[in-house]
Amino acid sequence: MITTPVPPRGFPDSEFAARTQRAQKLMSEAALDALLVLTEPDVRYFTGFLTPFWQSPTRPWFVIVPASGKPVAVIPTIGAECMARTWVDDIRTWPAPVPADEGVSLLADTLIEVTGGSGRVGLPMGPETALRMSLNDFNKLSKLIDPLQFVDASPVMQPLRMIKSEPEIDKVRYICGVMSGVFEGLPDHLSMGMSEVEIFKTFKSLSLEAGADDVAFLVGGLGEGGYADIISPPSARQSRPGDILILDTGATFDGYFCDFDRNYAFGEPDDAAKRAHDVVYRATEAGLATARPGVTCAELFGAMQRVMDEGGAMGNDVGRLGHGLGMQLTEWPSNMPSDMTVLEPGMVITLEPGMTFAEGKVMVHEENIVIRDGAPELLSRRAPADMPVIG
Amino acid sequence: MITTPVPPRGFPDSEFAARTQRAQKLMSEAALDALLVLTEPDVRYFTGFLTPFWQSPTRPWFVIVPASGKPVAVIPTIGAECMARTWVDDIRTWPAPVPADEGVSLLADTLIEVTGGSGRVGLPMGPETALRMSLNDFNKLSKLIDPLQFVDASPVMQPLRMIKSEPEIDKVRYICGVMSGVFEGLPDHLSMGMSEVEIFKTFKSLSLEAGADDVAFLVGGLGEGGYADIISPPSARQSRPGDILILDTGATFDGYFCDFDRNYAFGEPDDAAKRAHDVVYRATEAGLATARPGVTCAELFGAMQRVMDEGGAMGNDVGRLGHGLGMQLTEWPSNMPSDMTVLEPGMVITLEPGMTFAEGKVMVHEENIVIRDGAPELLSRRAPADMPVIG
Repeated sequence: MITTPVPPRGFPDSEFAARTQRAQKLMSEAALDALLVLTEPDVRYFTGFLTPFWQSPTRPWFVIVPASGKPVAVIPTIGAECMARTWVDDIRTWPAPVPADEGVSLLADTLIEVTGGSGRVGLPMGPETALRMSLNDFNKLSKLIDPLQFVDASPVMQPLRMIKSEPEIDKVRYICGVMSGVFEGLPDHLSMGMSEVEIFKTFKSLSLEAGADDVAFLVGGLGEGGYADIISPPSARQSRPGDILILDTGATFDGYFCDFDRNYAFGEPDDAAKRAHDVVYRATEAGLATARPGVTCAELFGAMQRVMDEGGAMGNDVGRLGHGLGMQLTEWPSNMPSDMTVLEPGMVITLEPGMTFAEGKVMVHEENIVIRDGAPELLSRRAPADMPVIG
Repeated sequence: MITTPVPPRGFPDSEFAARTQRAQKLMSEAALDALLVLTEPDVRYFTGFLTPFWQSPTRPWFVIVPASGKPVAVIPTIGAECMARTWVDDIRTWPAPVPADEGVSLLADTLIEVTGGSGRVGLPMGPETALRMSLNDFNKLSKLIDPLQFVDASPVMQPLRMIKSEPEIDKVRYICGVMSGVFEGLPDHLSMGMSEVEIFKTFKSLSLEAGADDVAFLVGGLGEGGYADIISPPSARQSRPGDILILDTGATFDGYFCDFDRNYAFGEPDDAAKRAHDVVYRATEAGLATARPGVTCAELFGAMQRVMDEGGAMGNDVGRLGHGLGMQLTEWPSNMPSDMTVLEPGMVITLEPGMTFAEGKVMVHEENIVIRDGAPELLSRRAPADMPVIG
C-alpha cells in the first residue's frame, strides 16, 4: 500500500489574504466596488468557513469582499462561533430564521457602508452558478441598495478559482491518492453475486477507513457487457458473469474533491468491452500528452475525441470529456469544443473520455491532473490498462 | 438490537400521481397555469428522480407541472436514462453543458406549449428556497416567455410537501430506527482519548453498516463540561475526562433524512451539564405532550421554551426549537414564535430544545416525530434520560 502524508487541515491566513488580493485586483479591472458571494464554495474560498450545515436550506449566508481590506461576513447567529475561528474579523449576525427579514436589511446596510452607497456590486450570475437565497429576498435586496447595482461577477470568480494554490493541490492530491488505493484494493473485497447496494456500501466503508472524510458522490453500476447509465444510485441487482462495473466517485478531504472512476469485469470481459476499455485508456493517454499550458480545452477535447472516433465511438451523453475540480465535484472549465479556456499551470482538471460502444453500452475513464509547466502531474494513480477481473 | 424491516425503495406511480393531483388542486386555487421546479427535492418530489449527480453544479434541471396531466422533464441528455425509469413520459433533453443556451430556449418553448403562452407560471421564491440556475439564464428565460409571468409558488409547494404520505413516513421511520440503534450502540465503540475526527469516522462506518445509505450530515464535537458550537466539522482534539460530546446527524435512506442528536459524557459529567441535560430532556417531554393537530408551531415552541426558561436557559443561537424534515435535512415549518403554521396529521418534524446553560456551553436535544390524531408517533427512539458515560 502506498501512503501519502496527511496534509494539514485548513490554510494559513496568508492563503486567504492572497485569494482576497487576487480577487480585488480582478474586481478593480472589472470596475466592481464590492463582491457578494452566497454559495458554500465561494463563501469558503474567501473565509475558510467549512461546515456541512449548508445541507439545511433554511438560512442564507453572505460574504462581501470590499474593494480593499478583509472580507465581511453577514451570517446567521448559529454560525458566529464557527466563523470566528476563521481569519475574518468583521462578523455581523442576525438571529435566523427570521423569514420577515432574513438578513436582507443587515446585508443591504453593510453593502451600502462598504461601497459608500453607489457603484457596482459583483454577484456571480454566469454558467454553473445558482442564487442561494430566495428570489423574493433578492428582489427586496436589489431595491434596498439602489442606486447600487448588481452586475455579473462570474468573469472575476472563474479565473480566480480555476487556478489552485499549492496547498489546495496538496489536498486534492491526498484524496486522489487515498481513493486510488481504495480502487486498487477493491477487487479483494468484491465477489460474484454482490449487489450494487452491497458494492457501494463496501466502497464507502473502505474509503472512510483509508482516510476520506466523506464519499459525497458515488455513482455507477453493473451492466451485462457494459453499463448504460452513469448517474444512478445503486440498485438491488446482483453481479453476474459478463458484467462490467463502473464506480465513479467524488470523495473529499478537508473540503476538496477527487473525481475519477474505475471499471471492473465480473468474469472474463467480452471482446467488445475489452476493446472499448482500451480505446478510452488510449484516449486518456492522448489527453495526458496534450494537456499543456497554452492549449485550449477545445483542443484537449479534440485530442481525446479523435482516438475515440477512430476506435468506433458512437457518441457520448456527457457532453464533455472532463472538467475542473477542487472545492466542488465539477468546476469550470469543460473539455468540449466550445470552451476556449487556455490551460494554465495550477489548473486542476479531469480527463474523462467516454463513449457509447454498442447499443446502450458506455465506457468511461477518468483521471485527475494538475497542469504544470511541461507535462501535467497525475493526481490519481493511473488506471490499469486492463480491467481487473473479479470472480 | 431492534431491527425494522427495510421499506421498499422508490414509490409506486400512484404516489407521484397523487402528489401531482394535490399540486394541481393548489395550483388551480392559486391561479397558476403551470409550476416550474428546479431544485433536487422539488424535482424528485414530482418525478422520483434520485441521483447524487446534483453534486455537480454544471447543469440545471427543470420539471414543469402543467395544470393537468403528468409532469414534463426538461433535462440534460446525461439524465435521460435515469429519468426514463421514473413515471415521467415526456422527457425533453439538450446536450448539456451548452453555456450559450443551457436548456433555456427548450424550457421556454415547453412552458409556452404547456400554458398556451399566457398566464402565470409558479416558481418557488419564498423562505428556504434558492434559484438553482444562473441569474443570467433566469433573466433570459423571463424575457423569452413574455407575456407569461413568473409568480411565487411557495404558497403551493410548502403545504404540499409539509404533509407526508405513509410511504414517505416509512422511509423516515426506517432511517430514524437505524440511527437510533447506532447512537445506542456507540458507547461500545468510543474510548477516552479518541479524537473528534476518529469519533466521526467510527460513527459514519457504523451507520453504513447498520443500514444508512449515507451520512450526509454529521456535526458536533467535544467540550469541557459542555460544547459551544454545533455546526463545525470534527477537529483533532482528543476526548478528556469531563468532556461532553454531541453528535447531530442527518443520515439518509432512499433520499429521506432523519435529523436528531445525542449527548455523551466522557467520565462522570459535572452537575451543571447533568442539570442542563435534564432540562432539555424535560423540554422535549413538554414538546411531545403539546404536539397535536390544531396546535401552532409558535405554541409548540412556547411549551418547550417555558421548561428551559424555568431551568435557567441563557438563550439559544439556533433561532428555533425544531423544524420539518423529509427529503431535506430541514424543511418548513419552524418551531418559533413567529411561525403560525398549524400542525396537521402527517407532518414530520423535529423537537429540538437547546439552550446555553453557562458561558460558552450549550445543551441540545432532538427527536423526530410525526403528527398523528392524538399523541405524535416517535420516529427516533427516545434518548436516555441520563447521558451515557464513556470511560
